[in-house]
Amino acid sequence: MAVYTQLGAEIMASIIDNFDVGELISAKGIAEGVSNSNWLVETRNPGFDASRFILTMYENRVETDDLPFFLGLLDHLAERGCPVPRTIHDRENRPYRFHDGKALALIEFLPGVSVSKPSPAQAHAVGHALAQIHLAAADFTSKRKNSMGLDASRELLNACGEEGLASIDPRLPDIVGHCLPELAAGWPTDLPVSVIHADLFPDNVLMLGDQVSGLIDFYFACNDITAYDVAVTHAAWCFSEDGSQFNSAISEALLAGYEEVRRLEPGERAALPILARGASMRFLATRAYDWMNTPGDALVTRKDPMSFARRVEFYSDDANRAIFEGSAQEGQ
Amino acid sequence: MAVYTQLGAEIMASIIDNFDVGELISAKGIAEGVSNSNWLVETRNPGFDASRFILTMYENRVETDDLPFFLGLLDHLAERGCPVPRTIHDRENRPYRFHDGKALALIEFLPGVSVSKPSPAQAHAVGHALAQIHLAAADFTSKRKNSMGLDASRELLNACGEEGLASIDPRLPDIVGHCLPELAAGWPTDLPVSVIHADLFPDNVLMLGDQVSGLIDFYFACNDITAYDVAVTHAAWCFSEDGSQFNSAISEALLAGYEEVRRLEPGERAALPILARGASMRFLATRAYDWMNTPGDALVTRKDPMSFARRVEFYSDDANRAIFEGSAQEGQ
Repeated sequence: MAVYTQLGAEIMASIIDNFDVGELISAKGIAEGVSNSNWLVETRNPGFDASRFILTMYENRVETDDLPFFLGLLDHLAERGCPVPRTIHDRENRPYRFHDGKALALIEFLPGVSVSKPSPAQAHAVGHALAQIHLAAADFTSKRKNSMGLDASRELLNACGEEGLASIDPRLPDIVGHCLPELAAGWPTDLPVSVIHADLFPDNVLMLGDQVSGLIDFYFACNDITAYDVAVTHAAWCFSEDGSQFNSAISEALLAGYEEVRRLEPGERAALPILARGASMRFLATRAYDWMNTPGDALVTRKDPMSFARRVEFYSDDANRAIFEGSAQEGQ
Repeated sequence: MAVYTQLGAEIMASIIDNFDVGELISAKGIAEGVSNSNWLVETRNPGFDASRFILTMYENRVETDDLPFFLGLLDHLAERGCPVPRTIHDRENRPYRFHDGKALALIEFLPGVSVSKPSPAQAHAVGHALAQIHLAAADFTSKRKNSMGLDASRELLNACGEEGLASIDPRLPDIVGHCLPELAAGWPTDLPVSVIHADLFPDNVLMLGDQVSGLIDFYFACNDITAYDVAVTHAAWCFSEDGSQFNSAISEALLAGYEEVRRLEPGERAALPILARGASMRFLATRAYDWMNTPGDALVTRKDPMSFARRVEFYSDDANRAIFEGSAQEGQ
């Protein structure tokens, strides 16, 4: 949540001049993105209204090697009518450029706000949009491995150590120790795969009223089990922030919105509980690792790992299996 | 340089709904302001283009008691054609409101970028705009004492202590010890006073090409010696960032631009060297204090106090007095 690189107006103007978007008239560093710097940029062509863009400078975590995948995916999805921002190519038609050794991209600005307490209607729209990108990405030929899969979660949790996990919460080593082997043993291998967003939290969805105006931040997008993306989105949207309250109306709306566009196969439905445990474990792992490696007095807000431990428990409870069982129509 | 308060979209929408500006369609936290949170907000009225505003939430340093002065001044100056943003009043015509005990104001968004290497033409425009606000504020009736005057500088430097100053640079205690008594003894008492901006660094000026599109961040504005504001602006614009290089072309252009609108009296001209030393000491003092009270590894960038110690030395050197002497026309 910071702007890591300071760019003077003259340098910013020369960067923008590499794109055919008119003259720079405003650039404000925005407090978004964890590992890159972002500016809301405004330009003007004589006689036209101002245009707005997000200029992103990739500071570290995003490997430049992956940018053709991430940015190419945005263009691919936007061309097929999905609500994602287009990449603005430079005058030489490159989707990204370098400045001072750092990659940067100019991306279409989309209106919309990120809701913090979604309504069922909003969750329905998000499910709908998620299925849209799953289908629209079917003929996207670039590939990217999921860098945040089960192995990555295990490594992060090992790095925390049992003592470290216990220092966060005494129940945490047990929850992790019980769930990780179960995930490894039961992880599905025969489900449909596709490009997935893999991080579709409310923060990464722009909404205008009940409509999705933009899905953003595709920097974890990869090829993986399609239904895993449904599970990630379910874990991200259907609980109170601390994970203690499940909202069944949101859950039903999200799944119904999804199935309006792409029907879940019976095997995918059946796998959702374990996929949702895996999704919760993935966020538990990064949060636990960040928790232990961020000083308590740092300016960065640490996110509570326990809010995802509670989701792991919820999805492990057989009493909750019914939430993923098909609606009445499914048997018809 | 942060957003201190998180506002969910629903709360943001309800805040914006208190103003007659249309429906919220976007809000991005921007990385500006040292002690308040700012969002670039976009709204839409059906059938109209989007409008943009800056929403500022006052977190601490700005006393709510001073807001009528700061915000009233913006409206006063904007009405008189000065390039400053208007305050948007709420539906009850209040210039600011409260949310969760914190004051907030909605302020007109102005295009423009802050230059880091100004040209003489840009410095000329800044001098011009500075004189404009000095004249336009003549009939502004609210008053505010300068909270960052000579006494405040002395207090901050005393709090640093001789050892503390020496830990920043071994030469610093001498520079301060020599200059502070001189300022106290020679500070002018008979010069014209007015409302002054008191912090007109390039960061606080928005420019479109060579034109000033906005003077912003009036949160140090107060009633004080008019020529002191010229001295602050001179110290802020006429040097390389580290204070080691004086730029005479910028200096001449700044003063010429100012005098295009408001002629400096001979007594003001004569006082500029001591006023500029006082201005440099004011920024030296806050930077030294912040330097000593900010951990070296904090995310906040510490600004080098020595860059203003060098300015103190420059303005103390009799060989440099000529820069403030009138142009040839002055005698005519």
